[in-house]
Amino acid sequence: MAEDKLKVAIVGSTGYGGVELIRFLIEHPHVEITSVISASSAGDFITDGYPHLQGIVVQQLDGVDPAQIAAKADLAFTATPSGVSSKLVPTLLDAGLQVIDLSGDFRIQNREEYEAWYNHPAPSQQLLQEAVYGLAEVYKYEIQRTFRLLSNPGCYSTTSLLGLVPAIAAGWIKSDSIIIDAKSGVSGAGRGTSLMTHYAEINENLKAYKVNKHQHIPEIEQVLTDVAGEEIKVTFTTHLVPMTRGIMSTMYAQLNDQYSVDQFIELYEQYYAGRPFVRIRKNGTWPATKEVLGSNYCDIGFAVDERTNRVTIIAVTDNVVKGAAGQAIQNLNLWMGWDETAGLKMSPVYP
Amino acid sequence: MAEDKLKVAIVGSTGYGGVELIRFLIEHPHVEITSVISASSAGDFITDGYPHLQGIVVQQLDGVDPAQIAAKADLAFTATPSGVSSKLVPTLLDAGLQVIDLSGDFRIQNREEYEAWYNHPAPSQQLLQEAVYGLAEVYKYEIQRTFRLLSNPGCYSTTSLLGLVPAIAAGWIKSDSIIIDAKSGVSGAGRGTSLMTHYAEINENLKAYKVNKHQHIPEIEQVLTDVAGEEIKVTFTTHLVPMTRGIMSTMYAQLNDQYSVDQFIELYEQYYAGRPFVRIRKNGTWPATKEVLGSNYCDIGFAVDERTNRVTIIAVTDNVVKGAAGQAIQNLNLWMGWDETAGLKMSPVYP
Amino acid sequence: MAEDKLKVAIVGSTGYGGVELIRFLIEHPHVEITSVISASSAGDFITDGYPHLQGIVVQQLDGVDPAQIAAKADLAFTATPSGVSSKLVPTLLDAGLQVIDLSGDFRIQNREEYEAWYNHPAPSQQLLQEAVYGLAEVYKYEIQRTFRLLSNPGCYSTTSLLGLVPAIAAGWIKSDSIIIDAKSGVSGAGRGTSLMTHYAEINENLKAYKVNKHQHIPEIEQVLTDVAGEEIKVTFTTHLVPMTRGIMSTMYAQLNDQYSVDQFIELYEQYYAGRPFVRIRKNGTWPATKEVLGSNYCDIGFAVDERTNRVTIIAVTDNVVKGAAGQAIQNLNLWMGWDETAGLKMSPVYP
Amino acid sequence: MAEDKLKVAIVGSTGYGGVELIRFLIEHPHVEITSVISASSAGDFITDGYPHLQGIVVQQLDGVDPAQIAAKADLAFTATPSGVSSKLVPTLLDAGLQVIDLSGDFRIQNREEYEAWYNHPAPSQQLLQEAVYGLAEVYKYEIQRTFRLLSNPGCYSTTSLLGLVPAIAAGWIKSDSIIIDAKSGVSGAGRGTSLMTHYAEINENLKAYKVNKHQHIPEIEQVLTDVAGEEIKVTFTTHLVPMTRGIMSTMYAQLNDQYSVDQFIELYEQYYAGRPFVRIRKNGTWPATKEVLGSNYCDIGFAVDERTNRVTIIAVTDNVVKGAAGQAIQNLNLWMGWDETAGLKMSPVYP
Repeated sequence: MAEDKLKVAIVGSTGYGGVELIRFLIEHPHVEITSVISASSAGDFITDGYPHLQGIVVQQLDGVDPAQIAAKADLAFTATPSGVSSKLVPTLLDAGLQVIDLSGDFRIQNREEYEAWYNHPAPSQQLLQEAVYGLAEVYKYEIQRTFRLLSNPGCYSTTSLLGLVPAIAAGWIKSDSIIIDAKSGVSGAGRGTSLMTHYAEINENLKAYKVNKHQHIPEIEQVLTDVAGEEIKVTFTTHLVPMTRGIMSTMYAQLNDQYSVDQFIELYEQYYAGRPFVRIRKNGTWPATKEVLGSNYCDIGFAVDERTNRVTIIAVTDNVVKGAAGQAIQNLNLWMGWDETAGLKMSPVYP
Repeated sequence: MAEDKLKVAIVGSTGYGGVELIRFLIEHPHVEITSVISASSAGDFITDGYPHLQGIVVQQLDGVDPAQIAAKADLAFTATPSGVSSKLVPTLLDAGLQVIDLSGDFRIQNREEYEAWYNHPAPSQQLLQEAVYGLAEVYKYEIQRTFRLLSNPGCYSTTSLLGLVPAIAAGWIKSDSIIIDAKSGVSGAGRGTSLMTHYAEINENLKAYKVNKHQHIPEIEQVLTDVAGEEIKVTFTTHLVPMTRGIMSTMYAQLNDQYSVDQFIELYEQYYAGRPFVRIRKNGTWPATKEVLGSNYCDIGFAVDERTNRVTIIAVTDNVVKGAAGQAIQNLNLWMGWDETAGLKMSPVYP
Repeated sequence: MAEDKLKVAIVGSTGYGGVELIRFLIEHPHVEITSVISASSAGDFITDGYPHLQGIVVQQLDGVDPAQIAAKADLAFTATPSGVSSKLVPTLLDAGLQVIDLSGDFRIQNREEYEAWYNHPAPSQQLLQEAVYGLAEVYKYEIQRTFRLLSNPGCYSTTSLLGLVPAIAAGWIKSDSIIIDAKSGVSGAGRGTSLMTHYAEINENLKAYKVNKHQHIPEIEQVLTDVAGEEIKVTFTTHLVPMTRGIMSTMYAQLNDQYSVDQFIELYEQYYAGRPFVRIRKNGTWPATKEVLGSNYCDIGFAVDERTNRVTIIAVTDNVVKGAAGQAIQNLNLWMGWDETAGLKMSPVYP
Repeated sequence: MAEDKLKVAIVGSTGYGGVELIRFLIEHPHVEITSVISASSAGDFITDGYPHLQGIVVQQLDGVDPAQIAAKADLAFTATPSGVSSKLVPTLLDAGLQVIDLSGDFRIQNREEYEAWYNHPAPSQQLLQEAVYGLAEVYKYEIQRTFRLLSNPGCYSTTSLLGLVPAIAAGWIKSDSIIIDAKSGVSGAGRGTSLMTHYAEINENLKAYKVNKHQHIPEIEQVLTDVAGEEIKVTFTTHLVPMTRGIMSTMYAQLNDQYSVDQFIELYEQYYAGRPFVRIRKNGTWPATKEVLGSNYCDIGFAVDERTNRVTIIAVTDNVVKGAAGQAIQNLNLWMGWDETAGLKMSPVYP
């Protein structure tokens, strides 16, 4: 019955993360979207900007009013930009809402580190300590015990970390040898317009950007350091690929001993046993981004170069799903004690 | 309970139409896929060719053995090429199966017409008469009364006909003035390899093909003639667009009187009232293919040029869904008396 | 020797039309680029925004100062937006420059018509009368006699007109039956940022826009009317295709008599005899946009539907070349009495 | 005068490398194409398969007859597959032709290494010793002294080596720390049809392939070892990117000391001083593949991560030009003592 459903609000519903939350949540068995919110388009219908939702979402967009949101909903997803969430989330919490934040604002525990990479003032230390980092396959128990605020991981971070954590936890790779060559589709840059997202500049083009400067670097290092129990620094490059969705992290590390691909597969299958959204590829094959498109999967494959004793780990996700909206819902499911896959059963769309 | 579900087989499951049937049917509340069949890959796992199905479809591929299929299933979808279905379907019917055929083989009532456009021998007249043409929004009642064999419409035909039928039925357009400029993504050509589907030949390219020669022409004319009660011929051009999914038919016709866009909108909303998968765009906007991607919608918009007294009708579908697998399931739903949207509620994937 | 070369300035050199002028003109045997001008980026190097020109163009960008331009150059290409050219060009002419304008401002002879379609104030009637319309294959003699101001045609107009003019001139098609279904790559929208050119909105998408409202309609009708000697109205639809470069016009018309494809081919080969940039496709084949990419060619192919007595004419160009910079240089060549192909001999880039 | 021109034949002219040779050579001031040759399409016109060459190349395709080729030409480009060139080239040399081979067959000096990576029998040791490896910016003097046979480098090899050689030569990077993450457009796979080049499989997809197994690995290591004077092994991953042209190698290495980006820029500018086709990007910027599209440039940029003391070197080329046809012509120019840029002055096509 509808009255049993969790009432949720989506703040920032006219961005790509917001509409993707809508795509999944309207089919979620335990959730009802009671409010869609946009600071810039309040009063409009969401179908004005997203005609693909005609007949699916009929609500008008609300403005950002915490009291009004709290009157309609129990939990808010904030799919708002970094620098906005840090100011908005405290007001939503104060209004009595639970919050899952999709921005980068509550991911970095060290406030100076945050400010150095994000160029925004950091949230309060108290909120940072309260926020649970929702990398679902690594911090399940913390997520299940979330009190008020869950911080959803970044798209690059999720993909890279799911590919590295089991090897780090097992101590199989040299912690100072990690190189992450990451590639993303353009939707990761959001719907805002800029020369960087202009079709004629992206199409038939491949470009690197923010080399060594991407704000997901401290997030990745924070988790790796936590898992390893020693400080880890990575070299991290981001590239824009002429496609809309998809992230691939191709990761390189020196092995501490001789390990075969089959051993890696077994290690990862054990680490992710029982977790529905990580799939390990069989020996000699590697995942492609389209094979997870539209779905919440993270697929991982391996190669070992005996000549140099390095492992190559390739992980892919759909950046808008497992890298954003999908993982946020997966986190909601864990938090609420529901089936981890509730509302997330869609298969990849192929071709 | 599982035993209440309809057991279905998918023949030709390793083509794009086949895997799209799988994507929808695995979530269908009243259906169980009991057999996936491939003439070319029997014995393999479907995940060998489609790793995106890992963890989703675990069955091995069966060969094409009607008795074996009938032993496992009650109904078969035949997503086999034209020229193959015409030979295969009679054997499946003889084995006691109900069949929904996605090829062109049972769409054309006139055997000579079929053979002229398809260059294959036509099926028997008896089977052609038995086959129901499953254009779901036009032939609902015939579909509901299907006995053994349903012929699923072509992708271009579906898109063009849904855009034209209400205007033809209302007598608003001159029946000898219809021009259909159709554009398709490449998945419509199937997974077979040829220079025509080579990435480097398609990317950053737009090409016309089969001008005035496409085999969907007689299919479109057959329905328009049926609806109009007089013979209708159309001019029909097909283009390959550098995208994977999506069909747009831009259609032109001379008006029999002065009609406004608002009048067209009203006419079409009435014609499609209560039908969940046709959406009419508001005045001044037209549909784009991405707005239906991955979904079973057909979106339609209008423009009237008072200077020449012509209407421009723009209809879009996802060719793999409403133009193939999705409509096949919609037809199954109508045939079986289920909710028309069962298993088909996925929203478009945007962006 | 350099002192014999024509000194040219490129105003609006940081738009796509501007950099394409540079690509061709730096190899032009009779031209020297003495000034590159940008209102928005004066003082910058063009390589700041276009690193692909590193080592090729070393000049700093000048601001828009007619006297300064005239001091450096004899002729200016104005690749400035419609509404800007109308104000700028008179000042350049007054400063003593010859001008080839690539905007729409000097194409429409009827000032009210211009203002109705462009929503800008029209230039003076005197300048409009002076401006020569540079459709190179149709108005060669007028172009050769240009005095001060040449107005370069639009991309859609060039493509559509080269496909229609010989049939109109020969009286083979019914003048009230012309339908133009035009499709363009995204570069035609320029380098300005907007949601319409956002990669994630264009990629894997096909959309119609400005249906019956595109400002190239009066331009096309003006030329067709001139050639036919009677008023001609067309129905004209524009679509955005997920590619960077290329225009295809698929054109439909009722035949006045029975004409075969071979007769059309002969008619067009005669009309364009001796003109190096129009290529007629052989019977049974049609041009694709990639086959002219990067070159100044316009390729044309035909189909005749005997069942409806209609001709389908398909014409393609690279919108940035024959639809803009290339034709501007072709016009310069004709104007100056040089070889029509000077600086324009690059073959299409394929694949 | 035409009689002074070098007469060249293009064997394998209907592949992508072959038509790209044609695009450049028809404009080359010192070369005349006297014969275009295709084993599979002899007797056809090249325009049958490549209509974009209509009006540009009128010759019929010859079959592969060494005596006939030698009768018409002085030098042959063999743009034939690996495994074919090794058999064909000796017959052409015997017939008296000079040869520039674009396959991999004459690149690897060690015959066992060749056979291990290529799975073909290696050419004779004598021919391997005679063949000059045409990495134009590294082996200029050897190329200038080529006697009969020049082996043109691979696309990945060219891009990666131009990015690594100066740092290796200077001893700035640890020779056992080199990781090359390479990404290519699809044209590198040639025009042959396979599921791997099917549009619907590539579009909106990013995939890794041949991880640690690509046949360009021994080629890269052979040159690095030669330059370093010690054996070097690299880790090398190849990815297919949804674009037609372009290669990017993102390369990582541990620094032997502290070097800044500015120092790298200076080092590389000195190494490539006077060489027209390598461009070094200014500090804080990195090259994108589109910025060299259609041209013979290789652009290189740098980042240094002080936190891990690693350098990231990013090099891009157009795989069909600098990675194949363009470098072959550059090598011809060096060999013949012509201007290194003859026939290769085309700017990148942007956008």
